[in-house]
Amino acid sequence: VGNITIGNYILTRLAQLKVTKMFGLPGDFNLGFLDLIEEHPDIDWVGDCNELNAAYAADGYARVKQNSLGVVVTTFGVGELSAMNGIAGAFSEMVPVLHLVGVPSTTQQKNRPILHHTLGDGRYDAYTIASKQFTISQAQLMDKHEAAHQIDHVLVQCITRARPVYMTLPTDMVHQEISGERLKIPLTRHPATNDPQTEEFVLDLIQERVQQAGGDIAILVDACVIRFDVQEEVKEFLKQTGFPVYSTPMGKTAIDEGYNRYGGIYIGTITHPLVKQRVESAKLLLSIGSLKSDFNTGNFSYNIPTRHHIELHSDHTRVQYGLFSGIGMKQLLPKLTERLQHWYPTAIKLPVEPFVNVVPNAQADIPMITHAHFWPRVGQFFLPKDVIVTETGTSNFGILDVPLPEGAKLVSQILWGSIGWSVGSALGAAFAAREVGKERVILFVGEGSLQLTVQELSPMIRHDLKPIIFVLNNSGYTIERYIHGRTRKYNDVDNWKWTSILDTFGANLGKKYQSYMVETRAELDKLLNTPGFGAADKIQLVEVMMPALDAPQALERQAELTGKGNTYAP
Amino acid sequence: VGNITIGNYILTRLAQLKVTKMFGLPGDFNLGFLDLIEEHPDIDWVGDCNELNAAYAADGYARVKQNSLGVVVTTFGVGELSAMNGIAGAFSEMVPVLHLVGVPSTTQQKNRPILHHTLGDGRYDAYTIASKQFTISQAQLMDKHEAAHQIDHVLVQCITRARPVYMTLPTDMVHQEISGERLKIPLTRHPATNDPQTEEFVLDLIQERVQQAGGDIAILVDACVIRFDVQEEVKEFLKQTGFPVYSTPMGKTAIDEGYNRYGGIYIGTITHPLVKQRVESAKLLLSIGSLKSDFNTGNFSYNIPTRHHIELHSDHTRVQYGLFSGIGMKQLLPKLTERLQHWYPTAIKLPVEPFVNVVPNAQADIPMITHAHFWPRVGQFFLPKDVIVTETGTSNFGILDVPLPEGAKLVSQILWGSIGWSVGSALGAAFAAREVGKERVILFVGEGSLQLTVQELSPMIRHDLKPIIFVLNNSGYTIERYIHGRTRKYNDVDNWKWTSILDTFGANLGKKYQSYMVETRAELDKLLNTPGFGAADKIQLVEVMMPALDAPQALERQAELTGKGNTYAP
Ligand SMILES: Cc1ncc(C[n+]2csc(CCOP(=O)(O)OP(=O)(O)O)c2C)c(N)n1
Ligand SMILES: Cc1ncc(C[n+]2csc(CCOP(=O)(O)OP(=O)(O)O)c2C)c(N)n1
Ligand SMILES: [Mg+2]
Ligand SMILES: [Mg+2]
Repeated sequence: VGNITIGNYILTRLAQLKVTKMFGLPGDFNLGFLDLIEEHPDIDWVGDCNELNAAYAADGYARVKQNSLGVVVTTFGVGELSAMNGIAGAFSEMVPVLHLVGVPSTTQQKNRPILHHTLGDGRYDAYTIASKQFTISQAQLMDKHEAAHQIDHVLVQCITRARPVYMTLPTDMVHQEISGERLKIPLTRHPATNDPQTEEFVLDLIQERVQQAGGDIAILVDACVIRFDVQEEVKEFLKQTGFPVYSTPMGKTAIDEGYNRYGGIYIGTITHPLVKQRVESAKLLLSIGSLKSDFNTGNFSYNIPTRHHIELHSDHTRVQYGLFSGIGMKQLLPKLTERLQHWYPTAIKLPVEPFVNVVPNAQADIPMITHAHFWPRVGQFFLPKDVIVTETGTSNFGILDVPLPEGAKLVSQILWGSIGWSVGSALGAAFAAREVGKERVILFVGEGSLQLTVQELSPMIRHDLKPIIFVLNNSGYTIERYIHGRTRKYNDVDNWKWTSILDTFGANLGKKYQSYMVETRAELDKLLNTPGFGAADKIQLVEVMMPALDAPQALERQAELTGKGNTYAP
Repeated sequence: VGNITIGNYILTRLAQLKVTKMFGLPGDFNLGFLDLIEEHPDIDWVGDCNELNAAYAADGYARVKQNSLGVVVTTFGVGELSAMNGIAGAFSEMVPVLHLVGVPSTTQQKNRPILHHTLGDGRYDAYTIASKQFTISQAQLMDKHEAAHQIDHVLVQCITRARPVYMTLPTDMVHQEISGERLKIPLTRHPATNDPQTEEFVLDLIQERVQQAGGDIAILVDACVIRFDVQEEVKEFLKQTGFPVYSTPMGKTAIDEGYNRYGGIYIGTITHPLVKQRVESAKLLLSIGSLKSDFNTGNFSYNIPTRHHIELHSDHTRVQYGLFSGIGMKQLLPKLTERLQHWYPTAIKLPVEPFVNVVPNAQADIPMITHAHFWPRVGQFFLPKDVIVTETGTSNFGILDVPLPEGAKLVSQILWGSIGWSVGSALGAAFAAREVGKERVILFVGEGSLQLTVQELSPMIRHDLKPIIFVLNNSGYTIERYIHGRTRKYNDVDNWKWTSILDTFGANLGKKYQSYMVETRAELDKLLNTPGFGAADKIQLVEVMMPALDAPQALERQAELTGKGNTYAP
């Protein structure tokens, strides 16, 4: 390896980390770097319609392409600030995203002229200060001698800690030459090593507790199993021990939902009574990678005494009231498997309610498509390896009761909950899905949410992606109606001609696309049964007409709880 | 006045400041406050498609409705961060905008649970910290005894200093009752009073310099004449003194362009040679409200020796090398008028090149619509009191050479330059125009920019606004092509079916709308001559097909200069 430009050093690192797509928009301060992306043999420029959507796309890409990261490239000020909500979402939800910003030259940053995209008062550091709130590490590439080290550092932080990082690249640094020496050693995740003595102690302790519980354990998998790359370790643990396992909303599909020891979703008081009883009556609950946000826990309504609770996290472990910092689950899990596998014969006898799809009743007395009907019906339509993206709104709740097939992956944003996210995210997810052997990408999005980011359907068409997009059209912000303002005008949403939108974006591009509208259960049935439809050989949009005041049961219950916390009365 | 809820206290203040529209989106933490907006007799809720667009709309509203302010209401985290780029733009361009954020209850802010829309790590102050970078004053309404004072303080800051401010309203504060006593005294701008002795000194000094120059003065009006509300004072000054006057791009329409002592636009080396010569050869240049950003000054290419330059600003004055802080133009100008009006007979003889529209040549050898043809042609279409909104891209430059009729107002964002802004801004401007006696709203936007914020056409339709929207479709980001990457793919933009977009958003709403496409000069002519078209009795969109590599002359020259500053080669 000889010398390499800083721009290409970055791209080489990203390619090593299996990044194949970069999202974003051009701007005066990143154009030179975009040349390098356009010329790179293994990385493609996607070209989004706006920066927020691009950040969402990078997030969706990273979620599906585990073990890699998402990258969004923006321009100084106007571009980077537009992306901020998307980056904050990646922080909140623990998704590894690099935000790379093209900025004015090092000279301009010293002299601080009133360039366009500045605040007009000479402050050139304001955007970085803001970004620090939402990224775990920042690199400003101002000195070529530091650049390689800085780049490597932020990237390792990003992939190890599964959070967004921020990098600024001045125009005059793009083509500066530096040594390529470091590139010989690829970057990898560097989770801290568990202290052996503490770890031994923790293993003993857990073993003892399991013994005391007579092996009556339930496992609860959550978001961080996916984020911190322990899905394989968890799968092995479950297989060897035979313990029953449940999932939170954010952990859904962390383990295959067809697994015969899997009992469905636990969300505190919102849980189906039988499942609730199983989880809460276990003598010990072992939760793995938990993330206890309001919507992930039925508004913090877990009924699990701390005495009965063990929690494995990415960088610490809790056994009942005791905290063991620095003991991370990635290394702990295989050892725990060894220690506990002898429980298999006992564990396998613990009953698990099978998590099965409800049979939808098309012959019900009403023809219209209610949530109670819709979700079981699409549940029958899902296939193994589908990537299913849902949006904050009715769809995030509706999907919970549907068991997803083997290898299927659910992508949703339950903690951050920024509407419109699912559309950008589906774009990124669709690129990633192709690369990781997943099959179809199916998006469920409320019409209210889709209005925020609708233009991101356009790059899907341009890049020949073939998602199936269900637009749930229920005359407004139904989830908000349930929380407050049931019939308020501010919760209404204009009724767009949704079946024209693909045509409006795509007609001149010579691509295939198709739109449908279904108003009754019979129409929905007919469409889902059309073989060509499920084959997903072109981008398809289905407008599903639903009643304004209908919602999945889980949402009804969650909204009640949220409403209480937000009471506006004094 | 008895007691009043905090929510209604805010609305009363805003109504006193002549706010009639509030922009934004609902969210779990602002719904209770939206009830009050919906119920308010003098304020309407607009309901935007996303928060960035809403911030742009509030900005556009404030620009046209001078002496009032724009308001954008968002929800905690997801909403407010989405609006951030819009707020930063209002900071940069000095536009008074209140960003009001519905946040979790005071109790929740103390206990900091992992609610949705949080970062998951208990930091509840991160969004405010970020917002501080882009607003001049922040109020967190956590204590009802402080609330009235805090509200008044941020609002006075906002209108006095013409910059955005930030306010957080917890859910449980909306209906708290406080005294309405303070509401008896309306809020007003409070520019600091000029120190009489310094002011006297400055007036003497200026008078002396004018004397030494033998009255050979040129006036240059700029952005802050509009932002700091001195248009009337400037007009009077010009009328009484008779000095020739020029404008910068950001000052365009600060004074009527039909005024007979007005000589057009000055932008340093980009200026038309005759105008350049007039401005630069004056013995003294008096600039009023100047804002010297790159695009407003031909990349800092003013050829005005400091010795020949006097600058009046909102809070200071410069006479040659001397700085007089605290001497603001609002109070200085009327006194200066008195001191200098005796120069009228001399001043009126100073020659001014008339700023007239070039006659477009429809019979030129090419039929296609080039910028050289387009701008003079639409110049003939403009009417008095038109509000003209242009976007970063070719249109911001193309409009410069077109003299705008009496009472017309140009709205553009030359310093901040965030693409997509013009669309939201036009929405806000259209509401404001109705109220301040302006007539038509005409938007010029590149197809690349329109893709960022296209959904904001939808509220225009819903609210029966009737802008005329020219979409300049030139197969990509032409301004960027001029700066770097002339034929790069990253500068291409998908060719949407622009003439369907109003139909897609509006067909189900039962509103009138119409779309057109013009490909030749003859077609453009025909459309502009159709009386119904100019009457603007419905929303109309005109797709104007233009060559990809054609640009207004001013842009060609600016791009060359910007390209030099951004050189990517080491
Ligand atoms: C960026 C952002 N703005 C506002 C909100 C508040 N919000 C949460 S859900 C929702 C309504 C979603 O409506 P829709 O997509 O139609 O879903 P539905 O519940 O009707 O199926 C809104 C406005 C948010 N979460 N994120
Ligand atoms: C939010 C944002 N993103 C990116 C940019 C960089 N940028 C400036 S102008 C421009 C292209 C505008 O293209 P278009 O609207 O088609 O105008 P044209 O010059 O082609 O008429 C871009 C991408 C920006 N200024 N703001
Ligand atoms: Mg809806
Ligand atoms: Mg264009």
